[in-house]
Amino acid sequence: MDSQSLNTIPHLTTVLQEPLEDLQTHLFKHRTKIEQWLRLQWQDTPAPFYASVDLRNAGFKLAPVDTNLFPAGFNNLDPKTIPLAVQAVQSVIERLNVGAYGILLIPENHTRNLHYLESLATLYDILQKAGYEVRIGSMLPDLLEPQTLTLPSKRRLRLEPLIREGDCISVKNFVPCLVLLNNDLSLGRPPILEDIHQEIIPPLQVGWSSRLKSTYFTHYQKVIQEFSKQIDIDPWLIDPLFRNCGEINFLKKEGYECLADNVNILLNAIRRKYAEYDVHHPPFVIVKADAGSYGMGVMTVHDADDILALNRKQRTRMSSTKEGKSIRRVILQEGVYTFETWGKLNAVAEPVVYMIDHFVVGGFYRVHTKRGVNENLNAPGMHFEPLAFVNSYITPDLHQTPDADPNRFYAYGVIARLALLAAARELK
Amino acid sequence: MDSQSLNTIPHLTTVLQEPLEDLQTHLFKHRTKIEQWLRLQWQDTPAPFYASVDLRNAGFKLAPVDTNLFPAGFNNLDPKTIPLAVQAVQSVIERLNVGAYGILLIPENHTRNLHYLESLATLYDILQKAGYEVRIGSMLPDLLEPQTLTLPSKRRLRLEPLIREGDCISVKNFVPCLVLLNNDLSLGRPPILEDIHQEIIPPLQVGWSSRLKSTYFTHYQKVIQEFSKQIDIDPWLIDPLFRNCGEINFLKKEGYECLADNVNILLNAIRRKYAEYDVHHPPFVIVKADAGSYGMGVMTVHDADDILALNRKQRTRMSSTKEGKSIRRVILQEGVYTFETWGKLNAVAEPVVYMIDHFVVGGFYRVHTKRGVNENLNAPGMHFEPLAFVNSYITPDLHQTPDADPNRFYAYGVIARLALLAAARELK
Repeated sequence: MDSQSLNTIPHLTTVLQEPLEDLQTHLFKHRTKIEQWLRLQWQDTPAPFYASVDLRNAGFKLAPVDTNLFPAGFNNLDPKTIPLAVQAVQSVIERLNVGAYGILLIPENHTRNLHYLESLATLYDILQKAGYEVRIGSMLPDLLEPQTLTLPSKRRLRLEPLIREGDCISVKNFVPCLVLLNNDLSLGRPPILEDIHQEIIPPLQVGWSSRLKSTYFTHYQKVIQEFSKQIDIDPWLIDPLFRNCGEINFLKKEGYECLADNVNILLNAIRRKYAEYDVHHPPFVIVKADAGSYGMGVMTVHDADDILALNRKQRTRMSSTKEGKSIRRVILQEGVYTFETWGKLNAVAEPVVYMIDHFVVGGFYRVHTKRGVNENLNAPGMHFEPLAFVNSYITPDLHQTPDADPNRFYAYGVIARLALLAAARELK
Repeated sequence: MDSQSLNTIPHLTTVLQEPLEDLQTHLFKHRTKIEQWLRLQWQDTPAPFYASVDLRNAGFKLAPVDTNLFPAGFNNLDPKTIPLAVQAVQSVIERLNVGAYGILLIPENHTRNLHYLESLATLYDILQKAGYEVRIGSMLPDLLEPQTLTLPSKRRLRLEPLIREGDCISVKNFVPCLVLLNNDLSLGRPPILEDIHQEIIPPLQVGWSSRLKSTYFTHYQKVIQEFSKQIDIDPWLIDPLFRNCGEINFLKKEGYECLADNVNILLNAIRRKYAEYDVHHPPFVIVKADAGSYGMGVMTVHDADDILALNRKQRTRMSSTKEGKSIRRVILQEGVYTFETWGKLNAVAEPVVYMIDHFVVGGFYRVHTKRGVNENLNAPGMHFEPLAFVNSYITPDLHQTPDADPNRFYAYGVIARLALLAAARELK
C-alpha cells in the first residue's frame, strides 16, 4: 500500500546529510519504544484538542519552530486525510463529554481572509461529520444578524452573533454543550467567554494573550531532554536553541543592547554545534514576537550588527503583530535551515503537521518561491502542497529504507508530537 | 472531497425501492441524534475489539445477517483505509493497557488458506504500525520450530510455536502484555489459553464454541427495538426475523418436523410484512448452523417442503461446519434479498463492514457471479471489491442527496454499528 501512497507524493528534494539520516534511522529503529513512551506521556498530560506544528528540516537537524494551538489551514490538508481527522474528533470529544450533541465553534474575526474562512469551513465539516450539530458563533462586534458567506470553494458559512445570557453562551435557538475555540485570543480574553458554565476547548489561558513562546520552548527543551535519554540521541538534533531578554521597543530602539548581546551568545552556541557536526553553513538567529502569530513580527539575523542596522521600515514591521498588537518581548531562536525544496523552481518548503488530540491526522508543505532557506516562510506569497501523508505519517513502512518517504514522514510525526507534548505540559 | 471519493467507487446498480429510500433519508436526517445515542451506548457497553458485519441490502430492507468477532478479510480492505484502522487500534489499545509494548497475535490454524494468511499479514501490519511489537503465536499442534511463510503478496509471515509456562503464554524470547485472538475457537476453548494472567482480547467466551447466532440475534432485536423508538421507524426495515428450534440431525433426519413447522411460521410472518410494504418477491428463509462460521452449513429454503426433500448430499453438507464440527442446532433467519449488483455481469453483491472498537474503518463488497439474490454469497467462487469507503462510511455528505453513495454507505455504517452493539451486549 505504501507504494501506492508514494505515487501521490510529489517530487521533493532533500539534502539529507549524515546526522539526520542517522536520526531518521534511529527514530525508525526505536519506533515501538517511542510510541510506548508517548502513550504514557499522554496519560499524564492529555494532548490539547488540536494543534499544528511548523517543522524545519535542515538535513543535519529536524526541529519544530512554531506550535499553533488554534490551527487554521485545515483546507490545505489532503481531502483523503479528513476521515482521520473525523475519527480523531470522535475519539477525543467522546472522552471530554460523551453526551454532547451540539458544538459552538468560535472563529477568528476575519471576514475578508478567505484562506481562513476556507479553513473554518473544513473544520466545520470535520466536526459535523464526527456526528455533532455545529453552529458558528462569531464575536464580530458589528454582527447583529446571521450572515452567510459564500466561499471560493462554493461552500457556504453561516456566522451567527454570539449571545451571552447569565453564565451561558449560545447562538439563537442553540445552546451548545461544548464550545470550540478557533480564535487565538491575540487581543486578550474576551469578557463574553469568561466564567461560562459550558466547557471551552481549548481553555482561554491557551490564547496568545497569555502564552509566551519562550515558556513553551522551555517546556519543549525539557521534553527533549527526557526523550533523548530514552533513545540516546543528542537533544540538539531535534531542539532549536533559544534565548530571550527583557522588554524591547523597536521603534524607540529600547532594549537593543540586550538583544544584540543575546544574538551573539546564541550565534556562538550554534557555531559550536555546527563545528561539532561539521556543518558548513553560516549560523543564523530568528527574532520573533514572544506572543506573536500569523508569521508576523519575524526576522532573520546573521550578526548582532544586523539589529543595530535596522531601518525605520524594518523596525516598524517588527513592532506589531496580528491585529496591530504591539510587540514588547521577543524570543531569539536558533535559525534552522530548511533544505527541503519543492518542484522544478526549487522553492523552499517546510512541513506543517496537524494533530487532533495526540493523533497525527495530516500535513502539508508550506512552500515559498521568493524566500531563502534561512527565512520565515509563513509570509504573503506562500502556498501549500497538501501531501497524502495519510499512509505515511502514522504508518512507517518497515519494508522500505529508513529514508524512504513514509519513514521521513514518520520522523516528522514524532517530532510534531514531541512539540505537542510540550504544549500539553505548558497547559497543565 | 466527496466528488473525489465518488470517482473511486465502481459502478454499482441498486434497485432502490421506496421504503429504503425512506430509510436512508431517515437515517441521514437523524444522524446527529443517532451518533449521540451510539456514543452513550458505547459508554454502557464497550464495543468488542474488532468485528466485521455482513449486510444485505434488499432495497426495501437493509439488515445484518452475520457478525464476525474474529474477522478475517483485512486484506480485502482498500489500502487507503488502513490508517483509519491503525488509528482505531491506537485508540482502543491505549484504553485497554496504556503501557503495553508487545502484542501476541493468535491466528487460526490454517496454513494453506492463503486468503486467511494474507488477512493475517494485513492485521499484523496494522498492529505494528499502531506502534507495537507484534509476534504470531500459533496453536498448530505440529509446529515445533518457527516457520516463515512467503505469501502471494510477497509478504512474509513468521509463525512461532505458542509456549505456556505457569499462567503465562509467550513465544520464544517474547512475553507479551496483550494477547489478540484472531481464532474463532470453533473447536472449543484451547486449554493452553485458559487462566493465563495476560489479558486476552476478545475474551475466550466470544469464540464460536460458546456463542449461538440465535442468542446474538435476540440481542440485536432488542437493540433495534430501542433504536427504532429513537428515530421512529419500523424495526423490521433493519432487523431480519428469525426463529430457532431444538436439536437437529440432518443425516438422521431428526428434528425435521420442528424445523419444517418453524420454516412455515417464519415464511408466513415475512409474507405479512411483504404484503404491508407491497413487496412482490417470494419470501425465503435461510437455515444455518447456530454456531457456524465461514459460510458453511447454510441453505436457502422457500418452502417447508424443501427441508423434507433434501437429498443425502445436501444433508451431509448441512451436517458439519468449519473443521468438521457437527451441526446440532440451526437458526432460521428471514432471507434478505440483496439487490445490489456489481459490474456488467450484474454479479450479486453484499456489503461487508469492518469495525475496530466502535469505529467503522472500512469495508468491501462480497461479490458472487454464480449465486442468486436469495443465496448466501460467502461461498467458494466469491471475490471482493474493496471500496474507498474511507470518505463515505464515516462521512455523510450533506451537500448530496440522501441516496448518493456516501450517504448510502453512511446507512451501512449505522446498521453495522447496531450489529456491533448487539455483540457488545451479548459479551457483557
